[in-house]
Amino acid sequence: MTDVYERSLALHAKHHGKLEIASKLPLETQDDLALAYSPGVSRPCEVIAEDASRARDLTIKGNSIAVVTDGSAVLGLGNIGPVAALPVMEGKALLFKRYAGIDAWPICLDSQDTDVIVETVRLIAPGFGGVNLEDIAAPRCFEIEERLQDLGIPVFHDDQHGTAIVLLAALINAARVTERKLEDLSVVIMGAGAAGTAIAKLLRCVGYGEHECVPVREVIVCDRGGILSRDRKDLNDAKRDLLGYTNRNNRTGSLRDAIAGAEVFIGVSVGNLLTQDDVRSMAPHPILFPMANPTPEIMPDEALAAGAAVVGTGRSDFPNQINNVLAFPGIFRGALDAAAPRISAHMMIHAAYALAGSIPEPTADKVLPLPTEVGTAEAVARAVSDAARREMERGDMTSQ
Amino acid sequence: MTDVYERSLALHAKHHGKLEIASKLPLETQDDLALAYSPGVSRPCEVIAEDASRARDLTIKGNSIAVVTDGSAVLGLGNIGPVAALPVMEGKALLFKRYAGIDAWPICLDSQDTDVIVETVRLIAPGFGGVNLEDIAAPRCFEIEERLQDLGIPVFHDDQHGTAIVLLAALINAARVTERKLEDLSVVIMGAGAAGTAIAKLLRCVGYGEHECVPVREVIVCDRGGILSRDRKDLNDAKRDLLGYTNRNNRTGSLRDAIAGAEVFIGVSVGNLLTQDDVRSMAPHPILFPMANPTPEIMPDEALAAGAAVVGTGRSDFPNQINNVLAFPGIFRGALDAAAPRISAHMMIHAAYALAGSIPEPTADKVLPLPTEVGTAEAVARAVSDAARREMERGDMTSQ
Repeated sequence: MTDVYERSLALHAKHHGKLEIASKLPLETQDDLALAYSPGVSRPCEVIAEDASRARDLTIKGNSIAVVTDGSAVLGLGNIGPVAALPVMEGKALLFKRYAGIDAWPICLDSQDTDVIVETVRLIAPGFGGVNLEDIAAPRCFEIEERLQDLGIPVFHDDQHGTAIVLLAALINAARVTERKLEDLSVVIMGAGAAGTAIAKLLRCVGYGEHECVPVREVIVCDRGGILSRDRKDLNDAKRDLLGYTNRNNRTGSLRDAIAGAEVFIGVSVGNLLTQDDVRSMAPHPILFPMANPTPEIMPDEALAAGAAVVGTGRSDFPNQINNVLAFPGIFRGALDAAAPRISAHMMIHAAYALAGSIPEPTADKVLPLPTEVGTAEAVARAVSDAARREMERGDMTSQ
Repeated sequence: MTDVYERSLALHAKHHGKLEIASKLPLETQDDLALAYSPGVSRPCEVIAEDASRARDLTIKGNSIAVVTDGSAVLGLGNIGPVAALPVMEGKALLFKRYAGIDAWPICLDSQDTDVIVETVRLIAPGFGGVNLEDIAAPRCFEIEERLQDLGIPVFHDDQHGTAIVLLAALINAARVTERKLEDLSVVIMGAGAAGTAIAKLLRCVGYGEHECVPVREVIVCDRGGILSRDRKDLNDAKRDLLGYTNRNNRTGSLRDAIAGAEVFIGVSVGNLLTQDDVRSMAPHPILFPMANPTPEIMPDEALAAGAAVVGTGRSDFPNQINNVLAFPGIFRGALDAAAPRISAHMMIHAAYALAGSIPEPTADKVLPLPTEVGTAEAVARAVSDAARREMERGDMTSQ
């Protein structure tokens, strides 16, 4: 077998990209053309001009999303720019279609300025039912996503929440496998970028008590400088915000200090950071998700040999791959089906539980379904659209 | 047969729009996904990051265009806004695919400000190989198109040039049918909007002398206020620009005054403006293209009864339909094939001659092919890409 990278390059060169458009209608006869285009098409235009909500019914708007990038944080390649990001955006669009029947089109922006990106997304929004932000660097990605939440259509940064939702699903099942309760877990996250921040945010609410969300017991976030604490003077705004809901006891020190005694390690940083001794310093039978790509923070076999009970990585060649594709197609499908104006934390948590629930009997080697397993996106979509409709009925979220 | 408008509405409601995306690659197995997406996809990204020109080869860029509108001049419906324009934009995208294999996606902009539209098109350009401006009102459309000619990819306002090119093709064959030379024709254009202006511009060069373009003998443009002349004080900038190359003798008066003695009438205005007496006042055996939709400036049977030799309209239920679809797919196909940085007047004229040449023996009832005839777009594309390559070789136009 030739190298996957060179085979991929050859495939891209052969087909000149991966996406194409197709017609849902016949376009053979003069009559076909009169219905799909002039003069017949003026009638749906008139109807939408009178009632804009009819666009969901009469056009692609209800089923199409823009996959928007500025090319600033593409895979592990970094800031390679909008044109070089296009193969990833095309691939993402294909996954939307393959897993959720959604028609997505790449929009590669020639700017890495937050204000410009926000404004451009607003300007192109009328033709789309949602916006998937992709491969935009932290901390810019946080502000862009937040400022676009009033757009009236879901705007979702997959590198943040997609990863966080799949991770939470894996954690839900890992807790079941190790017979723990989520609210008892002490969690250390290594990496305070897009994914690490979103995971920390999501872990504030991993279940519902009688009146409010229940968080995990403790979350400590680390970056290259060690534990994020109020004593650190080198933190940007986004990292300072994290201290509002992590590290309540203001612990200081290194990653090593942080994980001693913790039940869960989540890595979204770089490879080979963790030793077997580090794993041994954790609580007995710990749960580890070293997700750095392509090399995890610690290899699964090493972690397991040092006593880990459950290990998941970002790689498809080990068990328990934390793969965004398990979440984003179903999440957008559910949001579009409900015509939800945004994707709330509530919808994300229900997505995670639906994803976890798609494995009836999780084991240490199987806390998540494979991307190719049938029915996952549908289950996530149902949970998300139900959650959205409940929120809209309660008036927590206004419909479009 | 139910009404075409209601049938079209029902068809749009049934399919929820007309476009969808499809994959050029299989996406079934884990290996398929590894090649189309992560991890394999990082290789084409790296290659493009090193050499941006490889995007044409490795992505959809080389075969995809944005169909951009602000919804300000949609069909005969006027300023119905970007969302209500979507059915037309989808239809246009389908025609690009059907006739030229081009993958087009609608971009409906939430602004009708010239500066904002220009800037937004620049920002979304990296992922596209060309931009088709559509249904943007005059005179704004002129400035938007002109300011985007340095973008490095073709930017083409079809309502201007598409119509002008098909009209010129029809005129070339109508001149053959009536045994006239183009350079001897006196032409009156009624309507000084997007199409009328583009037609007037194109008629400055209808053939090539030894060293320069040969124009038609005379062009007079009229609007509701009569002949555009230097005596008119009510002209906007775009109409004043027209006086730089029309109405050389500064004639004044009404449309009626203008067409007396003219060989050719071109209407891009409103229905029922012309009488049979008007036709009788023209040169013997005149050529008329009353293209107002849905009702022409004069009905073909009336014009023919009053002595017209050739009549063409915008309607498919009469002979000689001046239909943009005869031009824009082949023009973009040719421009994309040549990787041309813009669509020059030279390329447009060659497109018109190729289109005219697709009818070997034109008659009064057949100066243009039907949209459904095979091979038209291919012939136009070849002529356009050849013309573009010659210009690029001569250094008149820099390749991308």
